[in-house]
Amino acid sequence: MDYPLPLVTVDAVLLTLRAGALEIALHQRDRAPFKNAMALPGGVVHADEDDHTEASIRRVLREKTGFEPRYLEQLQVFSGKDRDPRQWSLSVSYVALVPAAELEAASQAGFPGFQGFRFVSVDALPPLAFDHASIVTAAVARLRNKSSYSTLPFFLLPERFTLTELQHTYEAILQTRLEKSNFRRKMDAWGVLEDTGEQVGGAQRPARLYRLKDFTLFDRSVG
Amino acid sequence: MDYPLPLVTVDAVLLTLRAGALEIALHQRDRAPFKNAMALPGGVVHADEDDHTEASIRRVLREKTGFEPRYLEQLQVFSGKDRDPRQWSLSVSYVALVPAAELEAASQAGFPGFQGFRFVSVDALPPLAFDHASIVTAAVARLRNKSSYSTLPFFLLPERFTLTELQHTYEAILQTRLEKSNFRRKMDAWGVLEDTGEQVGGAQRPARLYRLKDFTLFDRSVG
Repeated sequence: MDYPLPLVTVDAVLLTLRAGALEIALHQRDRAPFKNAMALPGGVVHADEDDHTEASIRRVLREKTGFEPRYLEQLQVFSGKDRDPRQWSLSVSYVALVPAAELEAASQAGFPGFQGFRFVSVDALPPLAFDHASIVTAAVARLRNKSSYSTLPFFLLPERFTLTELQHTYEAILQTRLEKSNFRRKMDAWGVLEDTGEQVGGAQRPARLYRLKDFTLFDRSVG
Repeated sequence: MDYPLPLVTVDAVLLTLRAGALEIALHQRDRAPFKNAMALPGGVVHADEDDHTEASIRRVLREKTGFEPRYLEQLQVFSGKDRDPRQWSLSVSYVALVPAAELEAASQAGFPGFQGFRFVSVDALPPLAFDHASIVTAAVARLRNKSSYSTLPFFLLPERFTLTELQHTYEAILQTRLEKSNFRRKMDAWGVLEDTGEQVGGAQRPARLYRLKDFTLFDRSVG
């Protein structure tokens, strides 16, 4: 081999939705390069141990946050000689979606890693280490784009939810107000919702609880 | 570093459309592993020389085929310990689109690399080296999916084309017949076509030649 091998890392944009705002998990780096800067959860691929890069990012998230995201999607590669002062490096980046309620539960269960993480609104990010700001921009664009024609937003909701909660989630991601009856007609047409038979809100303003029929991504643009 | 560094490669699915069939460029490997098997054009990232992996694949395509594709898009990473018998490896794969007429011209101009390549229909592929069959499947799915809402198919056409050629290109990619007046209405609504003022076909059945107004990807799903 005539050329040095690149450093291969994985990074995740762990997204959640809290009080109508998209937030991501960041931690403060405790060593160079970019010591003290905020950064995405990530780490080096352990060749011979990780089966593939998806296994690498799952291991890193488990080790650093104690957490297994229900939804994980490969985003894209960021690479080059300038992004890490140490050497030519490559990051395989991922988008992970987590309901805020699951994060609360994990935090209360005392997952050690999560102590080091802060959730920050994507609209108020501090300067980030490496090219992590570009990774976050790409991740948010992917989520917003894909949400317009798929059930991706469901992965930011608890397992059971009201139609109003569902609509507010789509509105927060798409950054637009949706017309209630159109929205409900679209969900009916997709045929992805299942009525749980349960209700919330008491006798005065009861609201039915729904769940996603099949917890795989429904993508209207495919097939 | 406690772990060996992965081998980092780039591979391209160079797609063209000929006689209504999607075809990809393949060459026969002249060394192990997978000696004599057909494979995608690809190569190892030259860290310290390539600015990033997109520069790597452009260099590889230039060296192996003499060709600069007008459209190049990062597809996804394929990685793992089993895909290459030599070591844990990672391929950043790309989709490249090339009009058949440009390939003809390149071939006649005698680009040395292209002698070694064959264009094979994606519906009649031989067994491929490594996990290249999976890369091709992902590339064709990406092209088909994205073509339903974007101007991606234009990159398989010559610079000037008739509306019938444009419709046949969409039909070949989407594997469906499109209704002529609906198709033309959609293209009008997109506002991406420019009348060149030229015609083909003689006085009996003249057809106007169009071109794409702005040769960047128009993606209806974004913005």
